[in-house]
Amino acid sequence: MALVVQKYGGSSVADAEGIKRVARRIVATRKVGDQVVVAVSAMGDSTDELIDLANEVSPAPPLRELDMLLTAGERISMALLAMAIASLGMEARSFTGSQAGVITDAVHGRARIIDVTPGRISSALAEGAIPIVAGFQGVSQTTKDVTTLGRGGTDTTAVALAAALRADVCEIYTDVDGVFTADPRIVRTARRLPRISYEEMLEMAACGSKVLVPRCVEYARRYGVPIHVRSSFSDKTGTWVMGHASEESEEAGMEQAIISGVAHDVSEAKITVVGVPDKVGEAARIFGIVAAAGINIDMIVQNVSAIATGRTDISFTLPDTDGQNALELLRAAQEKVGFQEVLYDDRIGKVSLIGAGMRSHPGISAKFFAALAEAGVNIQMISTSEIRISVVVSQNDVDTAVKATHKAFDLEADEVEAVVYGGTGR
Amino acid sequence: MALVVQKYGGSSVADAEGIKRVARRIVATRKVGDQVVVAVSAMGDSTDELIDLANEVSPAPPLRELDMLLTAGERISMALLAMAIASLGMEARSFTGSQAGVITDAVHGRARIIDVTPGRISSALAEGAIPIVAGFQGVSQTTKDVTTLGRGGTDTTAVALAAALRADVCEIYTDVDGVFTADPRIVRTARRLPRISYEEMLEMAACGSKVLVPRCVEYARRYGVPIHVRSSFSDKTGTWVMGHASEESEEAGMEQAIISGVAHDVSEAKITVVGVPDKVGEAARIFGIVAAAGINIDMIVQNVSAIATGRTDISFTLPDTDGQNALELLRAAQEKVGFQEVLYDDRIGKVSLIGAGMRSHPGISAKFFAALAEAGVNIQMISTSEIRISVVVSQNDVDTAVKATHKAFDLEADEVEAVVYGGTGR
Repeated sequence: MALVVQKYGGSSVADAEGIKRVARRIVATRKVGDQVVVAVSAMGDSTDELIDLANEVSPAPPLRELDMLLTAGERISMALLAMAIASLGMEARSFTGSQAGVITDAVHGRARIIDVTPGRISSALAEGAIPIVAGFQGVSQTTKDVTTLGRGGTDTTAVALAAALRADVCEIYTDVDGVFTADPRIVRTARRLPRISYEEMLEMAACGSKVLVPRCVEYARRYGVPIHVRSSFSDKTGTWVMGHASEESEEAGMEQAIISGVAHDVSEAKITVVGVPDKVGEAARIFGIVAAAGINIDMIVQNVSAIATGRTDISFTLPDTDGQNALELLRAAQEKVGFQEVLYDDRIGKVSLIGAGMRSHPGISAKFFAALAEAGVNIQMISTSEIRISVVVSQNDVDTAVKATHKAFDLEADEVEAVVYGGTGR
Repeated sequence: MALVVQKYGGSSVADAEGIKRVARRIVATRKVGDQVVVAVSAMGDSTDELIDLANEVSPAPPLRELDMLLTAGERISMALLAMAIASLGMEARSFTGSQAGVITDAVHGRARIIDVTPGRISSALAEGAIPIVAGFQGVSQTTKDVTTLGRGGTDTTAVALAAALRADVCEIYTDVDGVFTADPRIVRTARRLPRISYEEMLEMAACGSKVLVPRCVEYARRYGVPIHVRSSFSDKTGTWVMGHASEESEEAGMEQAIISGVAHDVSEAKITVVGVPDKVGEAARIFGIVAAAGINIDMIVQNVSAIATGRTDISFTLPDTDGQNALELLRAAQEKVGFQEVLYDDRIGKVSLIGAGMRSHPGISAKFFAALAEAGVNIQMISTSEIRISVVVSQNDVDTAVKATHKAFDLEADEVEAVVYGGTGR
């Protein structure tokens, strides 16, 4: 008898029909003989509706209260899911994040999990009930206030519960059949990956794959929780995210692909600081200004200094939602830092090639850049890690770049396999 | 500096505008120099919408889960209210029933308050914040599960908090200007009572006045909490519910009215058990059957036994929502108990005359019955307490009976005073 933690996202429980479908799936898992713990998100767009209400009553809602408000969403979905399971003849009990022992720090809106003490969940399991846990939420260790975990928080709740309960697998139900070699909405022949390592999945997630958030994958890697990403709309096997999938493959005679997939991300913007005095500490000053505002920088490129001017240009990418804020901060510091100009471009996209196999295969970059050149795509920035190469291109070129790269590395499935279920593809 | 507990019902916080209006009122109270604790209900019809959702996923939702679901409603309204107050420049902190220390028994759907330990509320007050407490909800002492208090639960939350915090007053904001001598929708000249005793208010509430639920008045009486019922749509003084208002008036030279008001209730039904053997214990058996199903009986009338038959008829009233259930239980027991027939009538109404002054004034009943006779209203049942006389009449006669009684006892205001604000008059 395995212990399975199942996570259902908002699109899976968007309405009463969805909730009943999910209830049937949970009951079916139990009937096979497995124990089940469920983490569930708020219904469909209900979180957005609550945010709209908050904006109606306050121009800048306090984060403590926003967390209190938003956690009502999971409270509703989890209670309804427990009811739907009960109507199928099995006992289910819903638990808030606090009741489930999800202990966090006190940073409202993006709290980190400090500890998971799922005593009530274990008791419910021991008594034969199916515990339904509110995703996305916890309780602050110090203030005892309700907190939320931020984007993708329910995935993190599910993995954290799986780790604390020593579950055999954490099933993440979504509206696609798993992790694909590229976004199936761009590349129709994208292939489902039967297996991917935590490391590669992390790079995929960091580079724009929306299937899992990086934080959830990090958590799973740290505690060795196997994740099975699959569709709540079908019974197909999805993608297993586990330790060292590709290394094993490499040992197994290189039958597996060198490259896992192509990810893309159009949610970043590029800032170029022009004419920075080429002195020690100037870059630190610039990034210090941005970091102080809590903004995460992704890629950074610094040109070789023009000897004649003694000045250099520094470009970096950041979430486009932080763009205006960063621009204002930099402009306010222009005189102090002594640069000449700041340029802003939010019409960019990042295309990334990911694969643990590239570690031992030279020439991957060359092939990647050649494919882009052949497709007529101009590269603006480049950054690499041990198992990833990313380029920044014009946003208009992203689809072309993804398709060309996917084809160049022979990632196509023999037949069209991907089905995108929900409306949003999230 | 007084400590004021303010209760706002669902109609006061039905939308963003309502929430902002309530926030302004709370801030105004603080600016006068008083400390404020707020108990708030779910927004408008949101509780009904959640119940509809529950019915969509389950024919008989488990009560534990229904409580978990419904408490999401106050979570939303209290967080929004705290945000709206914050946007006016004052700190507000929302607290769930559990966080506010509202400890109950484990009877889901109609939990009783066992204890109130408002440590976090006191701390918030001490730190200068305005605590906003979720009405209607608590946490079970034994199971640690979330519970709800049933109908009028937020009034009870407010009074319980006021008692535990030794507040100077509990202000119950509603959409009428206070407690009136009769329902202003029936009697246009109904007069607002400036003051009424707990005892009279209890009788008014038990007899159909919708302004306060009996339970909340009982709680206030037990702990001596002064209640001020007033409108959230105006600044007018409302009605003070306090100890022995009428007795004081009597001492003060009888300037106050003998009668507080006329209440009516059309939510009851009448059951008549015909031909009950006139033996010791038969009535106990009949009411035992009904009581075992948790049904509350209101009035009971037993006719004098007809000597020829040795049989008697017993009539009683009960909430019409329990009518079918009681009928079925009685019919199932017909043979065992040995009565002849059960009759059911849900087209009845109860009209009650309430006033502590009637204790010392004979002839009140005679005057009441004469007024009804003159208006052509037939009396079906009569029941009295020390400060109340109730009659059951045909539902069609209720308005006529209320108007005639109100007039007979000179309860009219000199001018039309009552304004009903919200749509429902609740």
